[in-house]
Amino acid sequence: MGPFDATAHAERVRRVQEEMAARGYDALVVVDPANLYYLCGYDAWSFYMPQGLLVPADGRPHLVARAMDAQGAHHTATLPGEHVHGYPEDLVHRPDVHPWDWIAARGREVGVLPERGRVAAELDAHYFSPRGHLALAAALPGVQVVDSAELVNWVRLVKSPAEQQLMREAARITTRAMRLALDGLADGVRQCDLVAQIQHAQATGVDGFGGDYPALVPLLPTGESAGTPHLTWSDEPLRAGEATTIELAGVRHRYHAPLARTVSLGPPPPRLAACADAVAEGREAALDAFHPGATGADVHAGFAAAIARHGLSKASRVGYSIGIGYPPDWGERTVSLRAAETTELLPGMCFHLILGMWMDGWGYETSESVLVTETGPELLTDIDPGLVVKR
Amino acid sequence: MGPFDATAHAERVRRVQEEMAARGYDALVVVDPANLYYLCGYDAWSFYMPQGLLVPADGRPHLVARAMDAQGAHHTATLPGEHVHGYPEDLVHRPDVHPWDWIAARGREVGVLPERGRVAAELDAHYFSPRGHLALAAALPGVQVVDSAELVNWVRLVKSPAEQQLMREAARITTRAMRLALDGLADGVRQCDLVAQIQHAQATGVDGFGGDYPALVPLLPTGESAGTPHLTWSDEPLRAGEATTIELAGVRHRYHAPLARTVSLGPPPPRLAACADAVAEGREAALDAFHPGATGADVHAGFAAAIARHGLSKASRVGYSIGIGYPPDWGERTVSLRAAETTELLPGMCFHLILGMWMDGWGYETSESVLVTETGPELLTDIDPGLVVKR
Repeated sequence: MGPFDATAHAERVRRVQEEMAARGYDALVVVDPANLYYLCGYDAWSFYMPQGLLVPADGRPHLVARAMDAQGAHHTATLPGEHVHGYPEDLVHRPDVHPWDWIAARGREVGVLPERGRVAAELDAHYFSPRGHLALAAALPGVQVVDSAELVNWVRLVKSPAEQQLMREAARITTRAMRLALDGLADGVRQCDLVAQIQHAQATGVDGFGGDYPALVPLLPTGESAGTPHLTWSDEPLRAGEATTIELAGVRHRYHAPLARTVSLGPPPPRLAACADAVAEGREAALDAFHPGATGADVHAGFAAAIARHGLSKASRVGYSIGIGYPPDWGERTVSLRAAETTELLPGMCFHLILGMWMDGWGYETSESVLVTETGPELLTDIDPGLVVKR
Repeated sequence: MGPFDATAHAERVRRVQEEMAARGYDALVVVDPANLYYLCGYDAWSFYMPQGLLVPADGRPHLVARAMDAQGAHHTATLPGEHVHGYPEDLVHRPDVHPWDWIAARGREVGVLPERGRVAAELDAHYFSPRGHLALAAALPGVQVVDSAELVNWVRLVKSPAEQQLMREAARITTRAMRLALDGLADGVRQCDLVAQIQHAQATGVDGFGGDYPALVPLLPTGESAGTPHLTWSDEPLRAGEATTIELAGVRHRYHAPLARTVSLGPPPPRLAACADAVAEGREAALDAFHPGATGADVHAGFAAAIARHGLSKASRVGYSIGIGYPPDWGERTVSLRAAETTELLPGMCFHLILGMWMDGWGYETSESVLVTETGPELLTDIDPGLVVKR
């Protein structure tokens, strides 16, 4: 069992149903594994097969997964047995039938999916395929199937005190893993061996908290490839004279605290040092804006104005909301810290403030996991924010 | 750069285009990261955002990804710069517009996506959302958008000698990681610490081959939860008297060789020992059937008949084709080893033969990564197949 009980899940479902009522949804089809975990605790590496949580307008949701996974759902989900359904194994990877045919039919049988009306589904979540969507719609001919527009993700945005505590525990794992990585990074160390150290630390955790698996593997753009953020590692050694960015997260019961730092092996080239200085000013300005009542746009504006004074600009957002994550992403897909973001920051929201400058053949990145409190930003990790120069 | 050059990718694209012509497709929209890697070498943790490879009926494909990822695509993809396109950052996570609006429009501009005719898309792949599909269809009003039915995955089924070599290298990493795991598993060891050892070994690799990241984290059903296959680890210690299944893969340049073994800490209960004996017979029978010309059904029948003599049966398939993998799955989603499978085995195909018996509150699992050769099955890893009894 995870850290939240049936009462906590019922309260979350109630908040989702309140929003469903406001939008006129007769049912909601949830597929994002993070939303499944949030609403019922279900947690297994089964999301590579179709599965979903069917949320009625009132009452408890029903979980439908592959038979071999449904059989073990009670190890993590707080749903009663009669609310867990397993579809037959022979529906897996078939050209003629699809698990969502069965899931939709079962949803009708148990009365969650209506004959008429409006059903919302997570049409932009990971792990809901167009074939699944077509099967759901075909099984509900009298129903209008609409996009949920990340309804559950938005309900997740403000973290409860218990969730904030898990974020802090995750961040302690992050801090330890990053310290080990910064210590281990050296001329001649193979990238894969540095990653091995990081992954070891991510799993062993810290101070009696074991680590859960992160939604992203450690990212390690280095040398010329530091100009792009999402390359993974190779067998090649890290080299003196090159800069490397490390981006990693500690994870506690699926809650993520990501962090990025950049290391120069040897004296940094002037353009890198200058970029790091500009970003340091931008970081201070962004954190100054991190108060309840400010918007995502305010945070972005602070950063943008500061780096503009150094002749720099950044096309991509400077952060996004975080919390529960499953591969392939630890972002919540709701608030982005960018010029067009009008959402007001509230105490309990968490963000990955990520200040990445990806240039042609080089780059610089530093980030923080930030909790919004009544009095301003709480940095969840504890690592000096600047460019790390080694040797 | 990965292990395959532009010539190898061109030959793979040619085989895909041959099949496209046979099916009457004017273009193919590829989204599965394993298929992107196969057809052009593109390899980055960018698949959490919309991206796709647009394959014309003739000529080279075009890759479209988020701007910050397109900028670094040349580090791995063998496509010329003018065949790589980056969509603007402000399309990310917006309720009103979607990256696939832009991707489809760009596909029209460069002449890959036609005004009329049939375009196939990967409608059951991971990482193509219903919203993406709707945006693609809306941008191609005169076009029939059909399901590709895993066209590229089927082209991947038979591995070239170079691919087989990567499978063997991956398997050497698997063997080492499993040996370390079997050695490390002991009463009182926390699950997260055992996983830390496994992940360390998966990344460091063996004999100079560094390891790439696996599509699944190590799975570790233990104690009562061994009755379900896809639970991940916790902080709890492993305990004497309980059985634990370890499922993990070594990975080399995205090629996966998975393996599962079950360990009993102390003398196994009679039902577990009896199950392991039955499965051992079933395994031999399944491997006996692993010859060119046999079908997936023959392999399944051998296993099923053998365990039936012990009064056992298995509802789920006994394996599936493997090769390139990205999270969340290392299966190719083509051939399943089950009663209804009529595909004939050919030399160069690779399978994960996975013999999992998931019972009520306990389970037993053993598996092999198998390459089909002219003369029969080649086991890629080297670990005794039976139940491991420790202490």
